[in-house]
Amino acid sequence: MTIENFKAYAEQYKQNLLDDVVPFWLNNSQDLAYGGYFTCLDRDGNVFDTDKFIWLQCRQVWCFAMLYNEVEQKEEWLKCAIQGAEFLLKNGMDPQGNWYFSLTQEGKPLVQPYNIFSDCFACMAFGQLFKATQDQQYAELALRTFQNILKRKDNAKGQYNKLIAGVRDLQGFSLPMILSNLVLEVEHLLDKTLVQETIANTTDTILNRFYKKDLDIILENVGIEGEFVDCFEGRLVNPGHGLEAMWFLMDIGVRNNNQQLIDQAKDISLSLLSYGWDDTYGGIFYFRDINDKPPLQLEWDQKLWWVHMETLVCLLKGYLHTGDERCWEWFEKVHAYTWQHFADPAHGEWFGYLNRAGEPLLTLKGGKWKGCFHVPRGLYQCWKTLEQLIDKQEKTNN
Amino acid sequence: MTIENFKAYAEQYKQNLLDDVVPFWLNNSQDLAYGGYFTCLDRDGNVFDTDKFIWLQCRQVWCFAMLYNEVEQKEEWLKCAIQGAEFLLKNGMDPQGNWYFSLTQEGKPLVQPYNIFSDCFACMAFGQLFKATQDQQYAELALRTFQNILKRKDNAKGQYNKLIAGVRDLQGFSLPMILSNLVLEVEHLLDKTLVQETIANTTDTILNRFYKKDLDIILENVGIEGEFVDCFEGRLVNPGHGLEAMWFLMDIGVRNNNQQLIDQAKDISLSLLSYGWDDTYGGIFYFRDINDKPPLQLEWDQKLWWVHMETLVCLLKGYLHTGDERCWEWFEKVHAYTWQHFADPAHGEWFGYLNRAGEPLLTLKGGKWKGCFHVPRGLYQCWKTLEQLIDKQEKTNN
Repeated sequence: MTIENFKAYAEQYKQNLLDDVVPFWLNNSQDLAYGGYFTCLDRDGNVFDTDKFIWLQCRQVWCFAMLYNEVEQKEEWLKCAIQGAEFLLKNGMDPQGNWYFSLTQEGKPLVQPYNIFSDCFACMAFGQLFKATQDQQYAELALRTFQNILKRKDNAKGQYNKLIAGVRDLQGFSLPMILSNLVLEVEHLLDKTLVQETIANTTDTILNRFYKKDLDIILENVGIEGEFVDCFEGRLVNPGHGLEAMWFLMDIGVRNNNQQLIDQAKDISLSLLSYGWDDTYGGIFYFRDINDKPPLQLEWDQKLWWVHMETLVCLLKGYLHTGDERCWEWFEKVHAYTWQHFADPAHGEWFGYLNRAGEPLLTLKGGKWKGCFHVPRGLYQCWKTLEQLIDKQEKTNN
Repeated sequence: MTIENFKAYAEQYKQNLLDDVVPFWLNNSQDLAYGGYFTCLDRDGNVFDTDKFIWLQCRQVWCFAMLYNEVEQKEEWLKCAIQGAEFLLKNGMDPQGNWYFSLTQEGKPLVQPYNIFSDCFACMAFGQLFKATQDQQYAELALRTFQNILKRKDNAKGQYNKLIAGVRDLQGFSLPMILSNLVLEVEHLLDKTLVQETIANTTDTILNRFYKKDLDIILENVGIEGEFVDCFEGRLVNPGHGLEAMWFLMDIGVRNNNQQLIDQAKDISLSLLSYGWDDTYGGIFYFRDINDKPPLQLEWDQKLWWVHMETLVCLLKGYLHTGDERCWEWFEKVHAYTWQHFADPAHGEWFGYLNRAGEPLLTLKGGKWKGCFHVPRGLYQCWKTLEQLIDKQEKTNN
């Protein structure tokens, strides 16, 4: 690769982030009446539903605080993050400090805290916002929420768990995956031992429970000892989930100066990607069944924005830290598919949901599950990783 | 239409039922080791998952008992129904008599009774089986389950309800719809007043709460007073659900000799069908948003077997009881689409899930939600309705 190559890509990711995606959310999503954000935005940014989903509220706080911290100290970015955070502080939690799943536009609670993913994204948001403001109440809330997650994590659904205990106990990949990122996100708030322990636990869980050596694949649900369970949930593979987790592990590898971990995460990524890739139409499948049985998910063959974005981040980090040329080849292939099908230069932001053939299935830019998160975070990560590749190349050239 | 027309169609439905679909389930689905049925069957009938979903277990008991009662007293049909019923009696209920959602192959409970749809299908199954056997324990269980449904119906999800009460209370279409059919199914077990009340209530709820005159559409969720609620759930339309309910209402109309009810149900059916029809690829959409906003359901544009089957039943009954030629025209159009895309003469039974363009998205013949129910029930209903059309035509000709 020439340095010009890297520079052109870096410019594309940076420009899309700063000139397109960030303004799209800044201008269209803020609720100036009640605070917080509208995330249900149609193709050109108009609001089509006013409910407020805590995951996405928190993720947008995180995103604007992160941009303020890492890209430029723009007042409007910080203001956007703070107004969302204040809305959340006022309305987001039940009396026990558990984060609801969703609220009305005005902030009334709609859906109970039936799992702890809202809490994970709240912790991430307030941890990042503390960095921007040094406001101690944000730090305390992030820390309290983190401790609550650890407390609740083995029975995260509580009364809402429909499974009968002891018959077929499964553990899911989502929580260890999120924790492996969250622990670095809020490292500045935690004591060293807890950080080391959490890193060690989540890394071990991901690599020794969910990653299956014989299959060279990460499963979405495994038994309590990590064993394969032959049922719909146990056979499920979500390649995008695994690819996202692999760049979280690479970040841990960089932090801990653990090249072996980075190499392993890169190898697993390449395996997941070639397993998840649709050779007929291009793009990465949303779900597959490891035994090629029919999956439960009717959306299994769709192509989702976050899957592709997280894969791009993963491939660039893999290339930067290992030099494996297959990462770069795959990056160019996934980049071409992604920008051709997801980006929307006409109206800004990205489409979220494509059918198997790559046509938009829904033309929304945001909804119940897509908000201001994967696209801007991924663009930022790709841009910065490409800059590191440029630096590295410049050093090699000199 | 000529009488030969009707006869050819009647023969097609009858033959597919008796020579293809019924043997498919009889031969492939019975679990001779533990009792009950495998419903996860791939294209050629091989079992790909052994979990037992109570909805589908009950529906298959109902189906074979109904065939025994209505078509022919075949010993193997009754045996098939009874062995499933005995498995359910032994394993299907919690200590309070609520029906679980699913069991392992051996019959251990896997998923709690988190709503009352399992109970509805259990009631239907045991009510029908009582007709075949006159075994009093089946009648008692059906009756007890019916009473439990009425008791639980206003708080059907119990502790599993994630919605916060009093903020945005909605009522769903599924339960009144199912009750409007169930009450006729188990009429022989209920006292007259309860039957009349239930018929009156469900008919009123469907036509005056869920059916919206101004839109000429049935909504899937409405407010407590039947008002439109502008949120994802409130905007949702499931055309197949509405069409299925309309033939339930026609059956009530026939029972009560209420031509006005039949006419209205037929008119609503035609409206729902033209609203739900995909003018580009043919077939009926699974979901739409009444305001043309993006629906939550990523599977919204898919074509599902039961939607098409229930529509065929509805159109034939509408035609038989009203003579509206539009019913027959639509019947021929939907019939052509359905038999071209869903039927599978190579391996038997029907495909369940097609993508928008009409290609099988999953090649399974049964799964977690598709079992021995809509196809055989619909084939039977169409066959018998076509026979009534033949009779009627013969009388007219004489």
